[in-house]
Amino acid sequence: MAPLTNGRVLFNSVPTGFPEPGKTTVYDNSHTIDLENVPLKGGILLKTLVLSIDPYLRGRMRGPEIKSYAPPFTLGEPIMSHGIAVVLRSELAGVNPGDHIYGALPHEQYIVRHNIAGLRVIENKHNLPWSVFLGAAGMPGETAFMGWREYARAQKGETVFVSTGAGPVGSLVIQIAKEEGLKVIASAGSDEKVKFMKEIGADVAFNYKTTNMREVLTQEGPIDIYWDNVGGETLEAALDAAGVNARFIECGMISGYNTGGAPIRNLMQVVAKSITISGFIVSRLEPRWMKDFGEYMLPRLASGKFKYTEEITKGLDKVGDVILAVQKGTNKAKAVIQVADE
Amino acid sequence: MAPLTNGRVLFNSVPTGFPEPGKTTVYDNSHTIDLENVPLKGGILLKTLVLSIDPYLRGRMRGPEIKSYAPPFTLGEPIMSHGIAVVLRSELAGVNPGDHIYGALPHEQYIVRHNIAGLRVIENKHNLPWSVFLGAAGMPGETAFMGWREYARAQKGETVFVSTGAGPVGSLVIQIAKEEGLKVIASAGSDEKVKFMKEIGADVAFNYKTTNMREVLTQEGPIDIYWDNVGGETLEAALDAAGVNARFIECGMISGYNTGGAPIRNLMQVVAKSITISGFIVSRLEPRWMKDFGEYMLPRLASGKFKYTEEITKGLDKVGDVILAVQKGTNKAKAVIQVADE
Repeated sequence: MAPLTNGRVLFNSVPTGFPEPGKTTVYDNSHTIDLENVPLKGGILLKTLVLSIDPYLRGRMRGPEIKSYAPPFTLGEPIMSHGIAVVLRSELAGVNPGDHIYGALPHEQYIVRHNIAGLRVIENKHNLPWSVFLGAAGMPGETAFMGWREYARAQKGETVFVSTGAGPVGSLVIQIAKEEGLKVIASAGSDEKVKFMKEIGADVAFNYKTTNMREVLTQEGPIDIYWDNVGGETLEAALDAAGVNARFIECGMISGYNTGGAPIRNLMQVVAKSITISGFIVSRLEPRWMKDFGEYMLPRLASGKFKYTEEITKGLDKVGDVILAVQKGTNKAKAVIQVADE
Repeated sequence: MAPLTNGRVLFNSVPTGFPEPGKTTVYDNSHTIDLENVPLKGGILLKTLVLSIDPYLRGRMRGPEIKSYAPPFTLGEPIMSHGIAVVLRSELAGVNPGDHIYGALPHEQYIVRHNIAGLRVIENKHNLPWSVFLGAAGMPGETAFMGWREYARAQKGETVFVSTGAGPVGSLVIQIAKEEGLKVIASAGSDEKVKFMKEIGADVAFNYKTTNMREVLTQEGPIDIYWDNVGGETLEAALDAAGVNARFIECGMISGYNTGGAPIRNLMQVVAKSITISGFIVSRLEPRWMKDFGEYMLPRLASGKFKYTEEITKGLDKVGDVILAVQKGTNKAKAVIQVADE
């Protein structure tokens, strides 16, 4: 078989504001690969099927001099994100052709790895689409479930406010909270997303671009729990609308990712109202909650009790556009790149 | 006996920046009182001995339209703060002349109260000066002890950073942390305060006005626990110098009290580092910790194991100046107004 093009998405330059397709990242098709003969040296050959595009990727698009929890991308090398690949060939004990591999993968059509450090073979007992393992059944789903279990201390009848409630994390937080008997207020940036949030049970859902957020929160609050994915003005409004002993779960602050951080001016409310703010990175919670997550989430997704949405874009060459859409919030649902069919 | 002047400190106008003596508050000597004949109607007559001047008083100097945890002062009426008074006369069962009363008192030389709601008779088994019940043995001491017990989750060998470490709260946090085997970094605003912080055990003590705080924290950190009394730039520096799973205890944010709030630009660190920020008001912790507080703190103060400093100013007419000094940090130690001798 003749060598095939092995398309890749390379980190090309550090963005100062929003990441620019073709500049921040570039699609490169200069590499080829001979699938039958490429030497594996005891490793495995993977074919990438689906890749996840997540808000946190913006944080990795930085110079190596800036420290943060996830390492920066390397200029000239493929960017990475969670994905699913299928094993085409294997010289590694315990991994067989046809196995599916989950983990942080380089944005590359075909991948040779000498080991599976950081990756794992996944089963799919409930026959969910593979893309779901990048959303509700994967890292975003874990984020919602584990962050809630660890920090919410939710009581039936309490009120939770969820920002980006139509996203893969927020939409699961809404559904978990409703199952536990809370009143849910949820915000998102389009009427279509508001409709989805109502479908999955939000008691109050609004479009923050066209609604006076502070009025809604004042009327529907006080807030006992705030699930924050955005930071900035929304966090300020939530602090002002919080009740005594409120719990704020800080999952992300996308409003500041492309502006160098959005200032918070009323943090004194944490003193006045005895608020606890808990930030977290899901990987640090996995050791404690991974088993519970699978038992809780997979049956609910398979039965349709918990709903999710996806926006699947075909082709690795579209990665730059989808990254930008996720940063701007113009994507319609959990963003997935379909790199190849099985 | 002829009527005596009953001096008072009145709330006169809402400040926009720092409170101004003679404008924000005024000393008024237009009232008189006949101690022997003033009718008590079943109540008590108190003679005020000492009054506490605390940072939080700034928050009560606001218009009635702004909600916060402590009610606003009433224009034209005496301001209030924690104090100790002695009972001169009593028609109330269970309260006797010579008893000492602790609680929030109006700034007034003599007080007629019809009940003791919000106040309590205190004993002084260890023969501490009464002023100590406004500092280390009172609300500031409770704040240090109860906030630490509730939120620090301290482990021997960890590093704590204490801001305003020479103040009545911070100086006790330092001593509690040293007793529990932590490394203590502490900051204050004068060399004299730095000296005191070293005397009470701080491993690293610095004057934030003359020292590069970020350099100290980078070199001596990462911080596992941050005890915050100031907010603003100090909190930003602490967020940047924090380690993973750090606990931030938010006791106050005086840097913003006179400026409308100091913005925090790097709150995203709570996500990146899985930081928990816990704000609190000590009165909400009292039900849980009051008994432990007395058993822990009073013997340590009486034996001299725990040290404290006080700056006692004589005369109710000085209240406005002392309030301003506490807001600016130019006071040298826990500020107490001595209104009268026993």
